[in-house]
Amino acid sequence: MLRMTLAACLSVLGLAPTLGAAQVTEFTLENGMQAVVIEDHRAPAVVHMLWYRAGAADEPPGSSGIAHFLEHLMFKATETLESGEFSETVEANGGSDNAFTSWDYTGYFQRVAADRLGLMMQMEADRMRNLRLTDADIATERSVVLEERAQRTDSNPGALFSEQMRASLYLNHPYRIPIVGWRHEMEALDRADVFDFYEQNYSPDNAILVVAGDVTPEEVEALARQYYGPLEPSGIAPRARPSEPPSIADRRVYYEDPRVSDPYVVRNYLAPERDPGDQRTAAALTLLSNVLGGSGATSVLPRVLQVEEERALYASTSYGGMNLDDTVFSIFNVPVPGVSLEEAEADMDRVIAQFLEDGIDPEQFERIKFQWAAEQVYMQDNAAQLARTYGAALTSGLTVADVQEWPDIIASITPEEVMEAARMIFSDTRSVTGYLTAPEDE
Amino acid sequence: MLRMTLAACLSVLGLAPTLGAAQVTEFTLENGMQAVVIEDHRAPAVVHMLWYRAGAADEPPGSSGIAHFLEHLMFKATETLESGEFSETVEANGGSDNAFTSWDYTGYFQRVAADRLGLMMQMEADRMRNLRLTDADIATERSVVLEERAQRTDSNPGALFSEQMRASLYLNHPYRIPIVGWRHEMEALDRADVFDFYEQNYSPDNAILVVAGDVTPEEVEALARQYYGPLEPSGIAPRARPSEPPSIADRRVYYEDPRVSDPYVVRNYLAPERDPGDQRTAAALTLLSNVLGGSGATSVLPRVLQVEEERALYASTSYGGMNLDDTVFSIFNVPVPGVSLEEAEADMDRVIAQFLEDGIDPEQFERIKFQWAAEQVYMQDNAAQLARTYGAALTSGLTVADVQEWPDIIASITPEEVMEAARMIFSDTRSVTGYLTAPEDE
Repeated sequence: MLRMTLAACLSVLGLAPTLGAAQVTEFTLENGMQAVVIEDHRAPAVVHMLWYRAGAADEPPGSSGIAHFLEHLMFKATETLESGEFSETVEANGGSDNAFTSWDYTGYFQRVAADRLGLMMQMEADRMRNLRLTDADIATERSVVLEERAQRTDSNPGALFSEQMRASLYLNHPYRIPIVGWRHEMEALDRADVFDFYEQNYSPDNAILVVAGDVTPEEVEALARQYYGPLEPSGIAPRARPSEPPSIADRRVYYEDPRVSDPYVVRNYLAPERDPGDQRTAAALTLLSNVLGGSGATSVLPRVLQVEEERALYASTSYGGMNLDDTVFSIFNVPVPGVSLEEAEADMDRVIAQFLEDGIDPEQFERIKFQWAAEQVYMQDNAAQLARTYGAALTSGLTVADVQEWPDIIASITPEEVMEAARMIFSDTRSVTGYLTAPEDE
Repeated sequence: MLRMTLAACLSVLGLAPTLGAAQVTEFTLENGMQAVVIEDHRAPAVVHMLWYRAGAADEPPGSSGIAHFLEHLMFKATETLESGEFSETVEANGGSDNAFTSWDYTGYFQRVAADRLGLMMQMEADRMRNLRLTDADIATERSVVLEERAQRTDSNPGALFSEQMRASLYLNHPYRIPIVGWRHEMEALDRADVFDFYEQNYSPDNAILVVAGDVTPEEVEALARQYYGPLEPSGIAPRARPSEPPSIADRRVYYEDPRVSDPYVVRNYLAPERDPGDQRTAAALTLLSNVLGGSGATSVLPRVLQVEEERALYASTSYGGMNLDDTVFSIFNVPVPGVSLEEAEADMDRVIAQFLEDGIDPEQFERIKFQWAAEQVYMQDNAAQLARTYGAALTSGLTVADVQEWPDIIASITPEEVMEAARMIFSDTRSVTGYLTAPEDE
């Protein structure tokens, strides 16, 4: 079966008929608001998402955490809604809602019955422009995000370590700062900071509407015109962030924390992201990560270090190409007790050096491409997931066409392209190596 | 002689009569411009300095190098002067002029005959507000600063290394960026960027006038009122820069460059700076740096590593407290050939650990305090140097009183305070250790 073509394999799995079946259309309102509609008529539900091209990497220096803080505050009062009424209304209509913040975007979504889409747009358009915040709201929600940081970051040595690693990898680019914010800066965020960020970033020309579900593009466009159409654009300038200088030095980070039970070594390389119309390198890196450590025990690092040599509890790689700017290619190795982090690092380096020498096993490569394609097919089947993909892509500088071409690009990548990407990435001067350990005295 | 009091020693050297003899007065114009006058009537000359509270750490993200670039461009045309005419006029009047940029300030100075002070003020006030820049000026001078970067930084492995060390030490604060700028950002600086920075930072309420020489405060104030008085203030907000999060991880930087002939190891610790009315810790650190490595072969590191053990070509420490925000305490060790950088680092650590155990040699401490005081006396004798000290202090958040109290504070620091400062600094989590080497294959 590994020698079958991808199309034949998908056909065997009965997956081919739905591949690419989701109808995706797009339009742009006169005020600059982009919209993507994903039709899925299997259930009378709809996912309504509003994405802003504004995330943690767009924050003014010294105000880290403000994008995420604003995400929380967007559930407070507007001129027509009371604090908390937004989510209560969604719930009263049988729906659910949430929001998320990344470095490149902030997104809000609701899943409701299809006939409630207009109501969602009405409320979302309202809070894009009419947010009302009291000093009490600010104080209360600041405690909430500080507690979120306490729970997710400060109480988690891996998260603290990862924060230090990121701040060490990016010398100049704001991907250096944590999304939740540095604690001392979060504590100082006030109403004026929040409003400045809100007013500079929340406008129709900086927003992307994604609707997925039991709707037609015509219906969505009519509703979008009715609710979002009247909003005035702000004339937002294209995002221009500080970029990295040439990375000429090899860097290392050592973080000791008594709460660490399984020490590990991680190496982060600065890596190119998916660019509009230029995704081949990112596609090769996506496959490289899968080949080396991203697809379970059959990929190179876990196969050698976990299965064959039993020197690692867990070894993996990760790469995410959907970013506006330079991203990260990571290698992790959690050694078995008795193997030091120095040895674990040497293990990691040895396996990768061997891989660079041996090249890719053709059978593994076909298997990974097949797995990857199958995942895409499953994703096509999940309208909410597709909506999230389009939203993230469009706020990361990609187009609908880039998203649609991506599977074909992945399918066309050759082993030679993957090896070329590997040689590019594994150049030491672009890396930061980190050790997370417990103190020896403990 | 080492047991003599400081005053007695200075008297022996014939220095006491001039200590503190410089008359320093200050005034503030109604438009917010601060002024300091240092009288020195020994020669009919005057140093005229204009300092702006705007340096590389005040640049907008992504525009590194703009403060220094503007410093160059300030010698171009204004509404009344042609490009280059400023310096030509100074020279035609028998004077000399120059300018300098740091992280916290940009300064301009001229040394001329005392009766030319009004002319200097007239021209300096003119270019504070009436700078005219053509696109050709921008293009030409951009080549000049890029060439300056090529010569001072890119052709110098130590400078490149130091740039990487600094970018690694500061995770959040803009002291991370190089004053000259990252090359890729310098290449993109344009006229609009320069004018924005000029208009936001160059105004009388953001400037400090320092005049030293054969003048009276009354004369300086009258001239300042005449030339600087009519300039409108901009209502500049206090400088607020991103500050550092807690530094919890030990970091390391490895830079290899084939041009390196003497490899070395350096460790940088984040350290408190001199704060207005609160200079004791910085004073203790100043003496600590002198005790450990800042005053030649008799200080601890060079005595042990260069003289006694002959394991180092050069060992030293440095600390500069005159900064607006957290500064750097550095230790360097350049080992003799045959001693590796790992060994050199261990040597450094061993000597410091021994020092923390042994404490300060009282004779050495008195000698260092004496040397330091003698340097201050010599400095008092140099009006231009004094002017520079006051300008740097005032643009770094200090007051005239802080500068004047500094010698007494230094004199009153006890060995216990120095040891306390040493224990505070030598905590590993606040440090970045770097190795500068040539590649092994070369």
